[in-house]
Amino acid sequence: MNEHTVKAFDADIVQLRGLISQMGGLAEEAIAESLQALQRSDLARAEQIRAADKAIDAIAAQVEQLAVQIIALRAPMAVDLREVVAALKIASVVERIGDYAKNIAKRVPLIDGEHRIEPVSILPAMGRMAADMVRGALDAFAARDIQAAMRVRESDVALDDFYDSIFRTLVTFMVENPKTITQVAHLLFVAKNLERIGDHATNVAEMVYFAATGTRMAERDRGNREGEATWRA
Amino acid sequence: MNEHTVKAFDADIVQLRGLISQMGGLAEEAIAESLQALQRSDLARAEQIRAADKAIDAIAAQVEQLAVQIIALRAPMAVDLREVVAALKIASVVERIGDYAKNIAKRVPLIDGEHRIEPVSILPAMGRMAADMVRGALDAFAARDIQAAMRVRESDVALDDFYDSIFRTLVTFMVENPKTITQVAHLLFVAKNLERIGDHATNVAEMVYFAATGTRMAERDRGNREGEATWRA
Repeated sequence: MNEHTVKAFDADIVQLRGLISQMGGLAEEAIAESLQALQRSDLARAEQIRAADKAIDAIAAQVEQLAVQIIALRAPMAVDLREVVAALKIASVVERIGDYAKNIAKRVPLIDGEHRIEPVSILPAMGRMAADMVRGALDAFAARDIQAAMRVRESDVALDDFYDSIFRTLVTFMVENPKTITQVAHLLFVAKNLERIGDHATNVAEMVYFAATGTRMAERDRGNREGEATWRA
Repeated sequence: MNEHTVKAFDADIVQLRGLISQMGGLAEEAIAESLQALQRSDLARAEQIRAADKAIDAIAAQVEQLAVQIIALRAPMAVDLREVVAALKIASVVERIGDYAKNIAKRVPLIDGEHRIEPVSILPAMGRMAADMVRGALDAFAARDIQAAMRVRESDVALDDFYDSIFRTLVTFMVENPKTITQVAHLLFVAKNLERIGDHATNVAEMVYFAATGTRMAERDRGNREGEATWRA
């Protein structure tokens, strides 16, 4: 690339990173908002989250267009190409994270606001953990920080443990309160959505690592956790 | 593009389509196999599905590499560029479909083979419907057939109805058999995975439509189904 192309490429990358960071902020907000809406049976807020998800999708489409344009016009190589491809893939993952938040919001009308079931109250803490992982992964992308990326993946172990514990709590609650089973089933899906958000944040972290180093992060050592991992999936 | 480039591009596209179709076949097979394994408590088969998923992921990585290379080297325009970008996105969706099948397989050890709960038997029919949608969407891609793509999206309405009915059946079963709640909760997730596979097949169908026409498929008219759609999400 000549000097002009390099500058143009740098400007493109800055724009790409800006879009990803904007999407990430919206997704993170949607996670927190969806759990607040769930806890307060706030239907109006749930509706806003569904609308906000369209904004995330629109930015994802912009990222895709820009990334394809950069590859076609600038033909970047090596680390630069890896970064553009990472941005393309990260945008699609963040779009999915937004979908999970939207799915949580869609369950708000299904949880009875008058007779709130108690387990609703344990979900926001899990939501904060998941949202923190999303922010961590996108900050790692912005800063090309592989240490930060590795920390995100480590957090996923704690999030998985949290999910396991919530799963057991919810099942016990169902056994003891059969009348609430339909509602608690919805909460099971909410917890699962949060666990999946953590997986996706981890995917982003792994992409950040690959974009920066050209090698894959070592396989996570699940050791004797495999048994638990099996029943979580 | 000159004649040589056109021919090279055509060869690339043929290769790209071949990879996508290969992935699709594996994903479709994984769906059917996972439900058979679940129904027969076949742990060995479940383990094979988890291994086969790595093959799907490897092809997805090949598609990504090839698509990026085509964009960078051939700089395709208009409908050609849309097709390459569609292939890139479809590969990532099919990879996810494979993950859902793997997740179903992971639940096999959690379903008690000795005292099989009856609702397991309703899932394979739903699995066939989901697998058919996946094949339909990928055939539509291979043939650039927008009518076929539209039919896939129409099938998703029936799959969603099937899911709703299974959800209700499983919840009723839980209420009547509290001792089975943990196991039935796993089946709820299996049904949800199948419902999501249908959503992803629909996404592929929409991408096929966009790649071929340059315009988005009209929004699906859910009419007064919106209430049901809400509680399914």
